[in-house]
Amino acid sequence: MPETVGLQQFFEPRSVAVIGASTKPGKVGHAILRNMLTGGFEGEVHPINPHAEEILGRPCYPRVTEVGGEVDLAVIVVPAAAVLSVMRDCREKGITAAIVISAGFKEAGAEGLARERQLGGLARELGIRVVGPNCLGIMSTSNGLNATFAEGMPKRGNVSMMSQSGALATAIIDWSIQQGVGYSKFVSFGNGVDVGVVDLLRAWEDDEETKVIVAYIEGLANGPEFMEVARQVSAKKPIVVVKSGGTQAGARAVSSHTGSLAGSEQAYNAAFMQSGVIRAQSVEELFDLAVAFSYQGPPRGRSVGIVTNAGGPGIMATDAVERAGLRLAGLEQETIHALRKELPEASNFYNPIDVLGDADAERYTYAAEHLLRDRNVDGVVAVVTPQAMTRPTETAERLAFAVAQSKKPVLACFMGGSAMEEAVEMLNERRVPVYLYPERAVEALAKMAEYREWLEEPPDEYIRVVPYTQGVERAFGAARAEGRVNLGEVEAREVLQAYGLRVPESHVAQSADEAAAHAEKIGFPVVMKIISPDILHKSDIGGVRVGIRDRQETMDAYDLMMLRVHRYAPEAVLRGVFVQEFIQAGREVIVGSTRDPQFGPLVMFGLGGIYVEVLRDVSFRVAPFGARHARRMIDEIRSAPLLRGARGEKPSDIDAIVNTLLVVSQMVTDFPQIVEMDINPLKVGEAGEGAVAVDARITIAEEE
Amino acid sequence: MPETVGLQQFFEPRSVAVIGASTKPGKVGHAILRNMLTGGFEGEVHPINPHAEEILGRPCYPRVTEVGGEVDLAVIVVPAAAVLSVMRDCREKGITAAIVISAGFKEAGAEGLARERQLGGLARELGIRVVGPNCLGIMSTSNGLNATFAEGMPKRGNVSMMSQSGALATAIIDWSIQQGVGYSKFVSFGNGVDVGVVDLLRAWEDDEETKVIVAYIEGLANGPEFMEVARQVSAKKPIVVVKSGGTQAGARAVSSHTGSLAGSEQAYNAAFMQSGVIRAQSVEELFDLAVAFSYQGPPRGRSVGIVTNAGGPGIMATDAVERAGLRLAGLEQETIHALRKELPEASNFYNPIDVLGDADAERYTYAAEHLLRDRNVDGVVAVVTPQAMTRPTETAERLAFAVAQSKKPVLACFMGGSAMEEAVEMLNERRVPVYLYPERAVEALAKMAEYREWLEEPPDEYIRVVPYTQGVERAFGAARAEGRVNLGEVEAREVLQAYGLRVPESHVAQSADEAAAHAEKIGFPVVMKIISPDILHKSDIGGVRVGIRDRQETMDAYDLMMLRVHRYAPEAVLRGVFVQEFIQAGREVIVGSTRDPQFGPLVMFGLGGIYVEVLRDVSFRVAPFGARHARRMIDEIRSAPLLRGARGEKPSDIDAIVNTLLVVSQMVTDFPQIVEMDINPLKVGEAGEGAVAVDARITIAEEE
Repeated sequence: MPETVGLQQFFEPRSVAVIGASTKPGKVGHAILRNMLTGGFEGEVHPINPHAEEILGRPCYPRVTEVGGEVDLAVIVVPAAAVLSVMRDCREKGITAAIVISAGFKEAGAEGLARERQLGGLARELGIRVVGPNCLGIMSTSNGLNATFAEGMPKRGNVSMMSQSGALATAIIDWSIQQGVGYSKFVSFGNGVDVGVVDLLRAWEDDEETKVIVAYIEGLANGPEFMEVARQVSAKKPIVVVKSGGTQAGARAVSSHTGSLAGSEQAYNAAFMQSGVIRAQSVEELFDLAVAFSYQGPPRGRSVGIVTNAGGPGIMATDAVERAGLRLAGLEQETIHALRKELPEASNFYNPIDVLGDADAERYTYAAEHLLRDRNVDGVVAVVTPQAMTRPTETAERLAFAVAQSKKPVLACFMGGSAMEEAVEMLNERRVPVYLYPERAVEALAKMAEYREWLEEPPDEYIRVVPYTQGVERAFGAARAEGRVNLGEVEAREVLQAYGLRVPESHVAQSADEAAAHAEKIGFPVVMKIISPDILHKSDIGGVRVGIRDRQETMDAYDLMMLRVHRYAPEAVLRGVFVQEFIQAGREVIVGSTRDPQFGPLVMFGLGGIYVEVLRDVSFRVAPFGARHARRMIDEIRSAPLLRGARGEKPSDIDAIVNTLLVVSQMVTDFPQIVEMDINPLKVGEAGEGAVAVDARITIAEEE
Repeated sequence: MPETVGLQQFFEPRSVAVIGASTKPGKVGHAILRNMLTGGFEGEVHPINPHAEEILGRPCYPRVTEVGGEVDLAVIVVPAAAVLSVMRDCREKGITAAIVISAGFKEAGAEGLARERQLGGLARELGIRVVGPNCLGIMSTSNGLNATFAEGMPKRGNVSMMSQSGALATAIIDWSIQQGVGYSKFVSFGNGVDVGVVDLLRAWEDDEETKVIVAYIEGLANGPEFMEVARQVSAKKPIVVVKSGGTQAGARAVSSHTGSLAGSEQAYNAAFMQSGVIRAQSVEELFDLAVAFSYQGPPRGRSVGIVTNAGGPGIMATDAVERAGLRLAGLEQETIHALRKELPEASNFYNPIDVLGDADAERYTYAAEHLLRDRNVDGVVAVVTPQAMTRPTETAERLAFAVAQSKKPVLACFMGGSAMEEAVEMLNERRVPVYLYPERAVEALAKMAEYREWLEEPPDEYIRVVPYTQGVERAFGAARAEGRVNLGEVEAREVLQAYGLRVPESHVAQSADEAAAHAEKIGFPVVMKIISPDILHKSDIGGVRVGIRDRQETMDAYDLMMLRVHRYAPEAVLRGVFVQEFIQAGREVIVGSTRDPQFGPLVMFGLGGIYVEVLRDVSFRVAPFGARHARRMIDEIRSAPLLRGARGEKPSDIDAIVNTLLVVSQMVTDFPQIVEMDINPLKVGEAGEGAVAVDARITIAEEE
């Protein structure tokens, strides 16, 4: 990609050529030219069409090369087959930015896919940045640029939107015009052969006209790059994303617990969380949040004040506050006194404040102002229903004035239809977000609070160990030499030890006597396991014995194992028997990793056994991550209280789990050839006692 | 309550008196009279006001008693203090139905509460049914009756709505007028001193003008009565309820696990589920469902066909289908052939069917019709975005025609703003529910499918045991005789045994020799426990011993217990020692019950130990319930797979758990004096082996 070329040409071109402009109303090539001419764009607009003299009053050129003067941006609407030659014309003309509206590419079968690859290659070769193909185009409201075939353009605002779906973009534009939602930039990038999510995030990162970025995406080209850029951008402005197609998990053979529990949804959720991206669950929520972030700043904390002129909706807002993870602010005495002084006796002076159904605009706003002044209140939800004495528009006006005086966010809920229309319009104009239902206002406020918390997080601590790299490579080499991708127990131990993880003491014995000697050195009880790359399920054929209590049992076990293994798997290569320390005490947890096709290494945490297998009570992060996320992974599982010492038990060594998570995070980042791994169980002692990786499975890639 | 008087007078009065009608526009008493005169009501309307000759052209009477001819309904808007005397006037005039709009009752402090009680008593005494006080009033669209002070009246339709909140009712009316949602009856019952939820359910049960009942409630007067009536009504028509105020759990001292886990939310959810009531989580969802049920019948099953003219929204609908617990229908070969024949090659012929962005109304409807004809499809979600070739209104018209030809429900999603306005209006007129976002259409369809399943459920099997009632009463009596509300172990055993539940064999020993004799009879190992009503935490002072293996250990344990208990609790009354069978094998579960203030006995199920205490993985039902609900209680917990034999273990005896749940359900119904109980653990053997109630706590009410 020609990284040096920015995207300014797309948003601030001085002259634009519409290649494939059509004389016929109803055609896409006509609609785009019309939009370019009627949107208020002050630069030059050149229709290109070999069969017309002029279109919509503008002189028409047969080829873009024949336009006099420079052209900054080409909007291409010719049939797919002609796009490539038009691209060459663009190069000849010195154009470095093209929007390819034309369909007939990746979305249209094998031939289209080949054409799209050609287009991508050509764009790189010619040094032309491309938005599209198969897209709706671009809008920039500040200069009236409307290079789309949509009907109408939203008003100017500070939301910038990108959409992978042109149809959804059309619907959103139409809806935004009706609702009065203002945009700065609007990009439908279609198949995204070149310009995609990451480029647009970068373009809008320092764009002063963009206060909030919203996106509809179905997938990402480069997960790690997205995370890096999103993390950087979301430190400056909120990014709200609807990601669809979530429930279609890719069918892929997996052999680990982690692999079977990790899906694309988990990876996206983790990646978004780790990069500060706010995930909206629907386009409805996307709108709610776009408006909230566009108009108001996030609250300092999670304490909400509610003012209402009706009990029922007040209760609904209160319910929503608890469900959304916010809390009702406990008001200062001063506030309560002030409310008591001016409000009727039957009012509710405690949060939620009910100013009663006969409240006029003055009484309502008085209460709202006192809530905003209260030091315990971080944000306000203002509910108004259309009652006998309610003057919605006057209330909206006074409320908006109060909001403008305060630094705290106010989200309004004016319930009703035509009675509220004027008030809603007024609030929108004065930049007070207004919703039809209390729940939606509260949920938007909750996401704003989360975003504020993200902004205030200190950088995560990345603790790195210095691994014994040679040990890891030797283990991988040993498996590969035998054509295996699954590491044997000895090899897996080597890898863990190379990263300083504690494993049970163990020794290989080739005879009963040697086994007994090892066992005595380790100390009883011991565990014994057959060593054979050919036997996958050792315990099924008597290849595992636990709780061996003395020398005699050790020798007996050795001989019995050899006997049985020879009997049941006569072909198996035997490399002796493992004599291993038996880790008695400790809580069993699992730490694993798998590779997500989009984001790469994904690390999982859960409690062992049924917690993982039956309850699927696990948490995920994309590696690498730091200590804060490792701690959160532990807190996120439902069974976390068991580790913290629920039911009178002693707390487990959380620090040891955090350390293991960080080590695994580093390991799978250092060695991308690790495809899957499970440390299962990791036996965790009481606080301060550490953790031991009792068993581990590691699968590496077939070839490097 | 004068049960014999129905509610017809409220909805179909021939003549109405507005008592407190006002001459002043802006006053509630004026607004109601105006609404009564302008809504199209053809009966007589009499304003009552001692200070006016006529209002709005109608002759005014000083008292209702002076009206000539009969009056069926009084709408009372006089100040609260005058309501009681007006009620007496009504009686004198022979009026049996009154709507008390006036505020100043329960909602207005102690004095108001006293007044409300007087009003309730007087209503009963005079035989007048009362809607209100502190309410918005009543509408009935079929006869143009508008006895409210709201602005405007929704159009005629088949939704009947009741609301506990007048303000919310106002907002809903205003919004419904704007959206074109049609109603049959609309009742704001305010404080509900007489007519409440149950009366209205009964009134609308066989009302031919009501196809769906929707309700906003904050609480219920009589839970069991509500359940009984709702169960009966929901077998005829859907009841959709928004219940708010859910998160405010009542603070109440509880001693059992069940008590600490059961909240008002759990009780409402269980009660609604058991009576077929569909719970909407917000007023937004209430609207969605009102429209869906009003226009379309529920689908036969959960298989959904999706047709879309755009990929992105199709994916969003698909995601929503999975999240909502529906499934994408696998289409018949015939359907796929038909689609291939007429649709462009680039279309998606499999569900979701994408007819592409350039589809006209004909192509779109062709696909929709074939989906509707497909035997694998139970319902259709039809998504339309405003693209270049889309004619939304024509598409809406043809789609509506296709919908009318089919018995399967179709829920539409026309995404966009003004481009879709006409189409949306058209669909509403033709009774095709239409939503702005795919998720909302899908979620409404899912609730419809659930309702259909409810309709088709056979009656639940209620299996009753014949308890040894005397045994229970003796146990309760023994505790009460000592001033205790907590039953001792011996007493709790007696109660369980009286209902045929298996308990471990056990005997009381008064000496070491006797203990040894019992133990030998029971068979080792045994459990021993001190018997004393004064010692709550027996194990803390060495009062419990498990795993006693022989005669000598038994005798030692007896003597040690006596010694230690005398030392640590010298005052405690000792009644000997329990020698008990040790139930070794089995999965530990908990079956408990608590009393909900609204719904009465609530039964809980969960796995023992951490599953209940830490994971709070439990399910609830209101007792009494039958076998189907008992089975569902088991299936609902996340850890249910453990009982079904996850991880290669043998399945537990589910039938034995079902039986225990049913017995407890019956027990707490038979004996309302049981306030709380836990059987914890109930040890459940493998399938066919039964279950044993190893330990139980029962708390009874302080006095009967």
